[in-house]
Amino acid sequence: MAKEKPSIPKGTRDFGPEEVAKRKYILNTIEKVFIKYGFMPIETPTMENLSTLTGKYGDEGDKLLFKILDNGDIFKEIKEKNAEQKISNFEFRISDISGKGLRYDLTVPFARYVVMNRNEITFPFKRYQMQPVWRADRPQKGRYREFWQCDADVVGSDSLLHELDLINIYSEVFKCLGIEVEIKINNRKILAGIAEGLGAENKLMDFTVSLDKIDKIGIDGVEKELREKGFDENQIQMVRDILFTEKNSVNYSDNTIKSNLSLSHLSMLKNSSKFRDNEKFKKGIDEIETVLENLNSTNKTVNIKLDISLARGLSYYTGCIFEVAAIEGSLRSSIGGGGRYDNLTGIFGLEGVSGVGISFGLDRIYDVIEELKLFPETLSQGSSKVLICANDSIENIELAPVLQLLSKLRNEGIASEIYTEKINVKKPLEKPIKYASSKKIAYALIYSENEPLKLKNLETGFQVELTIEAIVEKLIS
Amino acid sequence: MAKEKPSIPKGTRDFGPEEVAKRKYILNTIEKVFIKYGFMPIETPTMENLSTLTGKYGDEGDKLLFKILDNGDIFKEIKEKNAEQKISNFEFRISDISGKGLRYDLTVPFARYVVMNRNEITFPFKRYQMQPVWRADRPQKGRYREFWQCDADVVGSDSLLHELDLINIYSEVFKCLGIEVEIKINNRKILAGIAEGLGAENKLMDFTVSLDKIDKIGIDGVEKELREKGFDENQIQMVRDILFTEKNSVNYSDNTIKSNLSLSHLSMLKNSSKFRDNEKFKKGIDEIETVLENLNSTNKTVNIKLDISLARGLSYYTGCIFEVAAIEGSLRSSIGGGGRYDNLTGIFGLEGVSGVGISFGLDRIYDVIEELKLFPETLSQGSSKVLICANDSIENIELAPVLQLLSKLRNEGIASEIYTEKINVKKPLEKPIKYASSKKIAYALIYSENEPLKLKNLETGFQVELTIEAIVEKLIS
Repeated sequence: MAKEKPSIPKGTRDFGPEEVAKRKYILNTIEKVFIKYGFMPIETPTMENLSTLTGKYGDEGDKLLFKILDNGDIFKEIKEKNAEQKISNFEFRISDISGKGLRYDLTVPFARYVVMNRNEITFPFKRYQMQPVWRADRPQKGRYREFWQCDADVVGSDSLLHELDLINIYSEVFKCLGIEVEIKINNRKILAGIAEGLGAENKLMDFTVSLDKIDKIGIDGVEKELREKGFDENQIQMVRDILFTEKNSVNYSDNTIKSNLSLSHLSMLKNSSKFRDNEKFKKGIDEIETVLENLNSTNKTVNIKLDISLARGLSYYTGCIFEVAAIEGSLRSSIGGGGRYDNLTGIFGLEGVSGVGISFGLDRIYDVIEELKLFPETLSQGSSKVLICANDSIENIELAPVLQLLSKLRNEGIASEIYTEKINVKKPLEKPIKYASSKKIAYALIYSENEPLKLKNLETGFQVELTIEAIVEKLIS
Repeated sequence: MAKEKPSIPKGTRDFGPEEVAKRKYILNTIEKVFIKYGFMPIETPTMENLSTLTGKYGDEGDKLLFKILDNGDIFKEIKEKNAEQKISNFEFRISDISGKGLRYDLTVPFARYVVMNRNEITFPFKRYQMQPVWRADRPQKGRYREFWQCDADVVGSDSLLHELDLINIYSEVFKCLGIEVEIKINNRKILAGIAEGLGAENKLMDFTVSLDKIDKIGIDGVEKELREKGFDENQIQMVRDILFTEKNSVNYSDNTIKSNLSLSHLSMLKNSSKFRDNEKFKKGIDEIETVLENLNSTNKTVNIKLDISLARGLSYYTGCIFEVAAIEGSLRSSIGGGGRYDNLTGIFGLEGVSGVGISFGLDRIYDVIEELKLFPETLSQGSSKVLICANDSIENIELAPVLQLLSKLRNEGIASEIYTEKINVKKPLEKPIKYASSKKIAYALIYSENEPLKLKNLETGFQVELTIEAIVEKLIS
């Protein structure tokens, strides 16, 4: 076989023992909170039929799907199809050679799962799911082609108590991880109400898509886009007014400034905004008010802000929407987001099931914790606690007593192993200790025929003579 | 958007809460043992470059690789390539449209990882890896297109102590899971020695491939294949003799009977077999003898059998090979296997690194445990412990006190939730209890304004009046 210099596809990563341990720490933290809030796990396949995925994430999303080549003789199939359709030249469509794609997010597969299992599921159905997803995006800092999402969703309930739970989950998870975050909240009904109030209800998507970019292109960029999309100056002034209700708090010339309205502005929006008479606008404001009132009666420590410019790209949201960003560190993009969607399962034929959910981005959370040095120092990497070393190479000594020591340790649940390689008999511990140090093994158990056992603490270098029973007792406690 | 009846690709599966809990139970059991034996976790990407995967699993394996369509305009690229090569018709090779494939096993990605990280790794490197793999095989009972492998490998050590550890890992994991198994052991050097002894060293692969099928086609089938491959009657008789050294123990007419030679036959093979003077044959026998002697000095409970017909298809094995099958239940195929490969990393340019490893097949182990009803009854599905129910629909009551109860439970780590849906006020517990029962929630906490709290054990139906403090105390302990 030819020798190749191996590599991995761009945007993907290997994870060594330390990274696996850190990722597990985050996953376990999130999972514990999900469980505490009554969510139950499901898992869906890596591959979905393209008919399940296509058209669910917009044109841009369709382009970013990883598609899997059909197995079998694709050329024969193309030729047969061409012959059937009397095409003389060699032509094919992607759908002729690919019927499956990699999971793009966890929400659409979940909707598919709910529809397929509708008769077995008791609603409201609260599920969590922690699995990788794949997008053929251009890789860059904080953006990978294979990355993990951790989602919690509730379907089959209109109750705003679920929005409350999801905000509390965000708050609790990031508190456990030690990351200070800001949760932004908005409501798609508010945006729909604004579009109606502008007399532009048919341009709601245009409006939302532009608004969504305010972080990147600033208010001036948004205005420019709206102008290009046919909004007139009067409409644009109304957008500017609603985004910057409290004019003193924002700097009009600074495109990076966001319209973070404090919660106290809710009633002002409700009572004195130009859109206050629009039903959708009012409903959106009311929903947020209910959520925040309930939040206020139990958890006053959540850092939550109303942000009327928050839109979230995906078109399936219809109610409250959330986005979470870390306050410290260099990562500006969100580390979580979600919202309510009134008819997600409708695309698969099950109408009238409302859902609401949130997602955690494992990889970005990892990057934030790493940058802020917030990982606990004692994370287990699954390493041995004891390395058994002999005063001669293992092949030269009688093995049975050494193997019995090993069995005794492992039988007590103490992770341990024997140093199996040749050693320098003049410096018998040199190689084993180098090995132990690379694996962060805490103790060396030194065996010599007809001598007492020695236990060496590899951090302090301190060494004692002990029986195997005493060693077990010491290491278990 | 059109309404489709959703489905999932054949050979793939969704897992609901109960299945996820059961799968986690198996994964956790295996992982704990891996850690106890000093193995550390790594994870590799789902996608590998096709150059990494192709040619590593034989022609049959290449056909079973799931290939990923390149992103971008594949038609434009094909046309450009055709123009470049002055091909007038529309032609392409798979490699023109696909550069990546899904992971086919964990061993080749591990070899790639070792080569890419050779400078950071301290050898011997003991890693475990538990991830899904994909094969475009025809789905059938016990065979899926997406399934999980749990591998433990050691690279960079020739010591047979690792073979011993791996056998003990098999033994311990299946003991923990309650599955009685038989571990078969053989050595590729024995097979190579036999081929040499037959004067057929150039037909070693042919010989191994046929031998590997003995389970399916029986000794007569093997003989037929060998005859077709040009082995003469004398050679075939020698094969029959070595496979059935103890003739009385086998039934020649029964094609399903295997050549399970007991361990005591090792020395007979060594001393009186026709192949006893072949160096490879002797080396193979010696290696197994060493492993079994060491095993005998520490763990006499392992059910291990020498099986000279065990070949294991993959061509990279060079030393001891293992295969594990459940003794009870209807699944006849193996639930684990592995062996020593002397030069796996050589295919990626790193020569002289010996490795040995084993694999557990999660999905088949699951099927065995399910069939034999060996799953513990108390597996947590991540469900709530308490469902808070009000005597009126949640939208009609003052929420703050209910939310505070919920906070108190969760703050103590008690998984809990509120019943959020409309209820029948005449039978206020009917719907909540149906919900709780579907989620196996143990308790209902019944809240009525101005009344004492009631805690109802949903299994016994027993109900008591308690303060929230007493409830917390009861549920924590």
